[in-house]
Amino acid sequence: MTEHHNTTYGNGKGEGQPVGIALLGLGTVGAEVFRLLNEYNADFTQRVGGPVEVRGVAVSDASKAREGIAPELLTEDAHALIQREDVDVVVEVIGGIDYPRELVLAALRAGKSVVTANKALVAAHADELAKAADEAGVDLYFEAAVAAAIPVVGMLRRSLAGDKIQRISGIVNGTTNFILDAMETTGASYEDALAEATRLGYAEADPTADVEGHDAASKAAILASLGFHTRVTFDDVHCEGISAITAEDIQAANQAGYSIKLLAICERLTGEDGKESVNARVHPTLVPKEHPLASVSKSFNAIFVEAEAAGSLMFYGNGAGGNPTASAVLGDVVGASRNKVHGGRAPEENTYANLPVADFGQTQTRYHIDMQVKDRTGVLAVISSVFAEQGVSLRTVRQEEGKDGARLIVVTHAATESVLDGIVRALEGLDDVHAVNSVIRLS
Amino acid sequence: MTEHHNTTYGNGKGEGQPVGIALLGLGTVGAEVFRLLNEYNADFTQRVGGPVEVRGVAVSDASKAREGIAPELLTEDAHALIQREDVDVVVEVIGGIDYPRELVLAALRAGKSVVTANKALVAAHADELAKAADEAGVDLYFEAAVAAAIPVVGMLRRSLAGDKIQRISGIVNGTTNFILDAMETTGASYEDALAEATRLGYAEADPTADVEGHDAASKAAILASLGFHTRVTFDDVHCEGISAITAEDIQAANQAGYSIKLLAICERLTGEDGKESVNARVHPTLVPKEHPLASVSKSFNAIFVEAEAAGSLMFYGNGAGGNPTASAVLGDVVGASRNKVHGGRAPEENTYANLPVADFGQTQTRYHIDMQVKDRTGVLAVISSVFAEQGVSLRTVRQEEGKDGARLIVVTHAATESVLDGIVRALEGLDDVHAVNSVIRLS
Repeated sequence: MTEHHNTTYGNGKGEGQPVGIALLGLGTVGAEVFRLLNEYNADFTQRVGGPVEVRGVAVSDASKAREGIAPELLTEDAHALIQREDVDVVVEVIGGIDYPRELVLAALRAGKSVVTANKALVAAHADELAKAADEAGVDLYFEAAVAAAIPVVGMLRRSLAGDKIQRISGIVNGTTNFILDAMETTGASYEDALAEATRLGYAEADPTADVEGHDAASKAAILASLGFHTRVTFDDVHCEGISAITAEDIQAANQAGYSIKLLAICERLTGEDGKESVNARVHPTLVPKEHPLASVSKSFNAIFVEAEAAGSLMFYGNGAGGNPTASAVLGDVVGASRNKVHGGRAPEENTYANLPVADFGQTQTRYHIDMQVKDRTGVLAVISSVFAEQGVSLRTVRQEEGKDGARLIVVTHAATESVLDGIVRALEGLDDVHAVNSVIRLS
Repeated sequence: MTEHHNTTYGNGKGEGQPVGIALLGLGTVGAEVFRLLNEYNADFTQRVGGPVEVRGVAVSDASKAREGIAPELLTEDAHALIQREDVDVVVEVIGGIDYPRELVLAALRAGKSVVTANKALVAAHADELAKAADEAGVDLYFEAAVAAAIPVVGMLRRSLAGDKIQRISGIVNGTTNFILDAMETTGASYEDALAEATRLGYAEADPTADVEGHDAASKAAILASLGFHTRVTFDDVHCEGISAITAEDIQAANQAGYSIKLLAICERLTGEDGKESVNARVHPTLVPKEHPLASVSKSFNAIFVEAEAAGSLMFYGNGAGGNPTASAVLGDVVGASRNKVHGGRAPEENTYANLPVADFGQTQTRYHIDMQVKDRTGVLAVISSVFAEQGVSLRTVRQEEGKDGARLIVVTHAATESVLDGIVRALEGLDDVHAVNSVIRLS
């Protein structure tokens, strides 16, 4: 604030007034948020326009001592903390869906702005939360819900608000990227790479939410909603994980010039009637080696945005972890706190476009199909005709000797998922085809 | 806006009220801004909360017909257009400094929010402009001033507001990146690569502002100011361009595993007394091939940000051109217009940290020094002792036969610019050294 700052805006508390924070949750992210709220406090006072003060921290066991936190700040009664008159901004970093939903709704309805890092909550209940925030005239921020410190939420909400986004594709789950990257660089099997990721702390004891793509699907729903100004929820997202990817798939992709990445893809589609729809999906994807997403290694995240006027943009960084997530949470805390002091609100979520979510069967993409076939003259003609009958042409065909007959790898031109489904069923019905080993989409 | 949106904030015009735009300038960017304001108009109405209407376009010759623009919108009297009561937001895309400064100040003082793409203006006069915006309680947006469509200004202003930034390094000038990339990939001389850039429209007829680094220096000043919450102006930025870079420099860098990039580097420094200062500089820099900035090719821009909690982030995209710049301008127009409807202001520039700009001589970096030396036994000992006497140790030494004696390339460990200056002067005074061909800093 400069000394010339002499106006307040609307319903702000006014320059110099303190902003009270309720912190819900004290896990890895919560502890970092608390620590940095102290460490950067003098800066936050300047950036917000008034001191930012933690009123209390809701935990499940308030009797447990926590280093660096005064015991009187701890409480097990999150609801009472939220309702305190001197609380202005509620930070939710508990995780889960039902309990945080209840708390976040209570906070919004009590006129508190909310900052949450909870992707599952936002992806499942965004409409309800946005409505509550809107009715109360308060802010709902969730930068940390997608790709932690990479500020893609703010970018879509604000910076790209003057453009028309066509496509968002991103590596938004660090665990699966770590596993796929390890498989590619070491030749390891999925099981071995997962074990290594678990050992190093990149994968949780129960890795299902990560490896089956559920975590990425929540993020895809949020990205699609913001990017296309419409509502896409977790249930709208077609989701396939990486647990079926084999070392052979990685190797075949590499030979063809691709890396396999688990991508969250959000597309704006225009039908033959000119009507727009959207799709959002998560699945393993062949990305050409020369594409910027292919070189995103280890547990890093990156989001690639294609907009009409801006062209292609990419944002890269740490997509998980206590510190990067806390950075995103605190950026939101500063924004929400500033609005409490000066008045004004962040741009609310705006789903005016109200676009239908296209049936997944209508999604068009290209496919990399790996088959075990009989090693006899004429087999290629038989297989090709299956594709030709469905009007799908082949881009590349590679045949090599396998242990049991021949291995045939084809890459198709674009086809819809439903057509492809029919082709795979037809292939599996052929005497000449022992097995369809894998079908992986191209980006 | 959803139907539940039932509050306005403070001094907003109110939901559904139109926002009047004055467009100053109709060059490449201005024409795109005008076109897209029409094309996206229905979307903007929804995103802003009221219709966005162009009241007039200030041009130097209003009698000239412009395709797609009603003649009655054109005016040569920018001041009268700005002062119109039905103008809320002024978009300045004229370029230059003095005349736009006069117009932007007039607009702010008249209570209009301003969106500008003018890096030179912001880098030279940010304090004066921020003060005028603050006193009038209006917004001053300039996302397009740095790296066009890459939303780095918004990111520093908002998303990273909860973090402490340590370093920003970026490729923020497309012309010079195109030239250096062409030199690296084709082996061309600087002159030939510049000629090619000019032919393809990447370089202007007078390329001085780009190739001498002035354009990048303006952007460095803006990035440092936002990132460190202090004021850094164009004059504070140490600036060296690329016109002295030779094909031999590029080749030597490549052999050592580096690409040469023109970087804008902004650093937070902590002195031995614990006091902080900042520096901002633009110069050709050796970037290790494995660093994400090394692979930024053609005229693309990328900004690499290192923050305490977030870690490393990179933002990549089109850093110039009518469309990408218009995208950034329009994102700002939506933001400023939304605030006019709903009340509230964007976070103003906040230079509270008030950090001194460190003397350039105190900058610490590593150096790649390319010399022509006598080809005689003992020359390396003589040269090494010059470095040793100044307490600078050598990281790598490479000697090869040259046409006139030997060529010696050393890479030093970190040293200050003033120490390095002394070393270079001492080397140039040695009988054994024919010439110091080049001194290039490492990133």
